[in-house]
Amino acid sequence: MESLDKVLKSIKPLDATAMEAARKRQDTLTKPLGSLGRLEAMSVQIAGIRGQAIPKLEHKAIITMAADHGVVARGVSLYPQEVTEQMVLNFIRGGAAINVLARHVGARVIVVDIGVKCDFPKTPGLVCKKVAPGTMDMAQGPAMTRQQAIDALETGIELVQEESRKGLDIVGTGDMGIGNTAPSAAILAAFSGLPVSKVTGRGTGIDDKQLTNKISVIEKALAVNKPDPKDALDVLSKVGGFEIGGLAGVILGGAAQRIPVVIDGFISGAAALIAVGLSPQVKDYLIPAHVSAEAGHKLLLDFLGLKSVINLDMRLGEGTGAALAISIAEAAVKILGQMSTFAEAGVSEADK
Amino acid sequence: MESLDKVLKSIKPLDATAMEAARKRQDTLTKPLGSLGRLEAMSVQIAGIRGQAIPKLEHKAIITMAADHGVVARGVSLYPQEVTEQMVLNFIRGGAAINVLARHVGARVIVVDIGVKCDFPKTPGLVCKKVAPGTMDMAQGPAMTRQQAIDALETGIELVQEESRKGLDIVGTGDMGIGNTAPSAAILAAFSGLPVSKVTGRGTGIDDKQLTNKISVIEKALAVNKPDPKDALDVLSKVGGFEIGGLAGVILGGAAQRIPVVIDGFISGAAALIAVGLSPQVKDYLIPAHVSAEAGHKLLLDFLGLKSVINLDMRLGEGTGAALAISIAEAAVKILGQMSTFAEAGVSEADK
Repeated sequence: MESLDKVLKSIKPLDATAMEAARKRQDTLTKPLGSLGRLEAMSVQIAGIRGQAIPKLEHKAIITMAADHGVVARGVSLYPQEVTEQMVLNFIRGGAAINVLARHVGARVIVVDIGVKCDFPKTPGLVCKKVAPGTMDMAQGPAMTRQQAIDALETGIELVQEESRKGLDIVGTGDMGIGNTAPSAAILAAFSGLPVSKVTGRGTGIDDKQLTNKISVIEKALAVNKPDPKDALDVLSKVGGFEIGGLAGVILGGAAQRIPVVIDGFISGAAALIAVGLSPQVKDYLIPAHVSAEAGHKLLLDFLGLKSVINLDMRLGEGTGAALAISIAEAAVKILGQMSTFAEAGVSEADK
Repeated sequence: MESLDKVLKSIKPLDATAMEAARKRQDTLTKPLGSLGRLEAMSVQIAGIRGQAIPKLEHKAIITMAADHGVVARGVSLYPQEVTEQMVLNFIRGGAAINVLARHVGARVIVVDIGVKCDFPKTPGLVCKKVAPGTMDMAQGPAMTRQQAIDALETGIELVQEESRKGLDIVGTGDMGIGNTAPSAAILAAFSGLPVSKVTGRGTGIDDKQLTNKISVIEKALAVNKPDPKDALDVLSKVGGFEIGGLAGVILGGAAQRIPVVIDGFISGAAALIAVGLSPQVKDYLIPAHVSAEAGHKLLLDFLGLKSVINLDMRLGEGTGAALAISIAEAAVKILGQMSTFAEAGVSEADK
């Protein structure tokens, strides 16, 4: 396993030459200048990430990481904890939303147990990388040790390296973990300083009373742990989750391998906060898939200065938003590779 | 050719039984209630359109209609008029943005000359349905006769019927016509009463001076013609275009055949205004693809009470936005057809 430190050092700026070439090519294609808007910008970004003027996104994957959360004992979710385990099995059998949407866009799904509170029997298709069977209750103390936080990050890094060896041109992040909007809100509050009441949402659909309780639990977690926003590892270990750490590792490892990382919703966004906290450079490698209906997600994207690709009021996680955005990223890149130029097509250019 | 009147009479409300069945099924699938947001709403709408609880969108097409505009003589566009013809040939050869994006989403492209100002030689792949070689200058008088407006509408109706016989489960609209943001803005101003200065944009990219000229040309067209917003045929004939009329026909014919119609950008939106003016019922059959960067498009969607699927600051037309939205509509429907229910997957439901 490559060390976190080594990976952080290997993340480089985007390739300016490839970006300039992509930008120039866009301006020669048979369409009014800039008329494909953010598709053009995305194609230039991906050219810079891949270091190729005309990149191809052939191999696509969603890495969906599952883990449990000690804080669930405090009634922060509508669903019982065993749903994490049950949904992992649903992923493996191909019946969940992420399976349907990943198939639709031609991406493979890698399902990872990084901290589910159960012992899965040996299950073909399930990647077992359990750091621990669920976090501790963050309202009482740190969710995990600092070493476990590093382990979660390095697990994500290792996974994306393994997938890269099989062929990987773009990767999406996905999560499953009953209760995981609570640590995500705590992470956002810790980094941004925004009040917990503003960044906390209804997750799977809790009512007003449950929301009030969730807010006070998160406030307690922050008061008890005092995570240091200047130390992303401290934030992750004190109020994070194993899937959040793992996905932050996927983001860092993706950037190190020059692979665009499509970040899904609120939980993946919290992972992005951790990753950017460890390496600000990594932001350039991110494609934010969508704005979740979960209250804090828009604030999270604003805090990171990112603008989402789609907005369909989704709030499911699993990588569902990432799957749809991967297809749009692929479209953006195909424009660059497959459209005719004005010269090739014999089309007159604009009067200057 | 079926008459416009007959088609208008054959447009029925959505199938409430199919919609109810789709809605109920969504609530049994392994995800928190409503957590796929507008994907769920879209699947229910499409169920109602198709009259099937679990519809399939196998056969997909974009109908891209091209025509020229007499008003171009007044300098409302940055590109010379012959670009309409050149781009039609680019479509046929498969080198335009719409070709790339339609291939990406598995949709066929039907390229239609409904009023280009040239004589195309017999060109395999080009559907010749020319009503006339370009409209007249709307700043001097009606862009077309009332009969030509009917001809354009019936051409669109006929086309979608022909395509339906080949197999068509969802259709997107697309346009090509140098200068056609001008009639589109005129149509929006005529129906909405909004000032021309608010609904007129820069099209392919004109500067401030050209924009001022474009606004005054459109104002003149409205003053000279006085289109009656209560008579959509009057609006189409006086300040419309052949591709706009043809696409309005595609929308009406699609609704009559119970085919969801994904409307592209500003020009397709103007066609939707005409179609809805002729048959308000048709609105339920529309899926608005995206918000164009063209100034008036957001106002147009607001006026129709429609919310777009994506927003990527695109402003190209051709059906490019529709292509991407067709893929998202297909994803929505696959969710309905392919996801496991809680019972099938053995996943616990929410605590009630």
